[in-house]
Amino acid sequence: MRKYIAKWTRPLGVAAICLPFVVAVAAADNASPIYGVSLPDGYRDWRVITVAHEAGKNNDIRAILGNDIAVKAFREGTRPFPDGSVIARLAYVYKSSPENDAVFPAPQSFVAGDPTNVQISVKDSKKYADTGGWGYGQFENGIANQSEPLLKSCFACHTKLDRSKDFVFSHYSP
Amino acid sequence: MRKYIAKWTRPLGVAAICLPFVVAVAAADNASPIYGVSLPDGYRDWRVITVAHEAGKNNDIRAILGNDIAVKAFREGTRPFPDGSVIARLAYVYKSSPENDAVFPAPQSFVAGDPTNVQISVKDSKKYADTGGWGYGQFENGIANQSEPLLKSCFACHTKLDRSKDFVFSHYSP
Repeated sequence: MRKYIAKWTRPLGVAAICLPFVVAVAAADNASPIYGVSLPDGYRDWRVITVAHEAGKNNDIRAILGNDIAVKAFREGTRPFPDGSVIARLAYVYKSSPENDAVFPAPQSFVAGDPTNVQISVKDSKKYADTGGWGYGQFENGIANQSEPLLKSCFACHTKLDRSKDFVFSHYSP
Repeated sequence: MRKYIAKWTRPLGVAAICLPFVVAVAAADNASPIYGVSLPDGYRDWRVITVAHEAGKNNDIRAILGNDIAVKAFREGTRPFPDGSVIARLAYVYKSSPENDAVFPAPQSFVAGDPTNVQISVKDSKKYADTGGWGYGQFENGIANQSEPLLKSCFACHTKLDRSKDFVFSHYSP
């Protein structure tokens, strides 16, 4: 890619100057359809809420992280979650680990492979009033998935939960 | 408990004054045999390195967290880990979630149940020179397990790994 940009910018001159602007616009546009949810800065450094494994079609192993507002609400059992709560679900390919199993007495070790996607849930009771106060986004390699049917499936599933859970699957693990 | 303390301290008087001292001594003593590793303050707030599932006898699902030195080393691929690296492995009962499965099209959801134990690995290349530079501790409900055979089994297993891993099972998940 770098090679092509260099080639193209030579005759145009101005293209190299425009590039940072183009990148900035792309970042602002990197939001989910319907909800306009972006990948929050620094979410990978957030604290762990819990971990889980989804078998079946997903076949992933996942860490569920939260920003400070969400983690406080989880720890104190506050429901509904306060506005500003953000939950990040990081999923990875679920795979056995021959490397670990070689050390253990029997095959037993399943670990996180490549990342599959990151899902972000943002609580804003006014902005997302039609979907229980939650807005959703899904990101593959940091890029917002633009499928409207996919994004619609988030609330369609979360709304099936008991109301006491405020549309959230995860329980806090101490 | 509060009720009993109130009852007992009335005739003795001094017991209530002694209590904080007793608690402080207990905390200092709450360290692993062989290595003297304690549960680090605030480890539950540390960043995630990765997640895993151990089947078999463990039957747990786990989050592997690291202090700042360990996370930096994982992210930058620094091996051996620098002194001061601390890794915390938090394990929970691996259990299916009928609550989640009721929402999904098929049984597929496995979540973290009650905590089983927390294992702490501390890198100190001088103090723990005999065990690859690592000291170990295991804690149930915050209490250091005092079994010497158990603690000896840590390095006996970690030492079977390829040397390039510096005796650490986990790989960093982005």
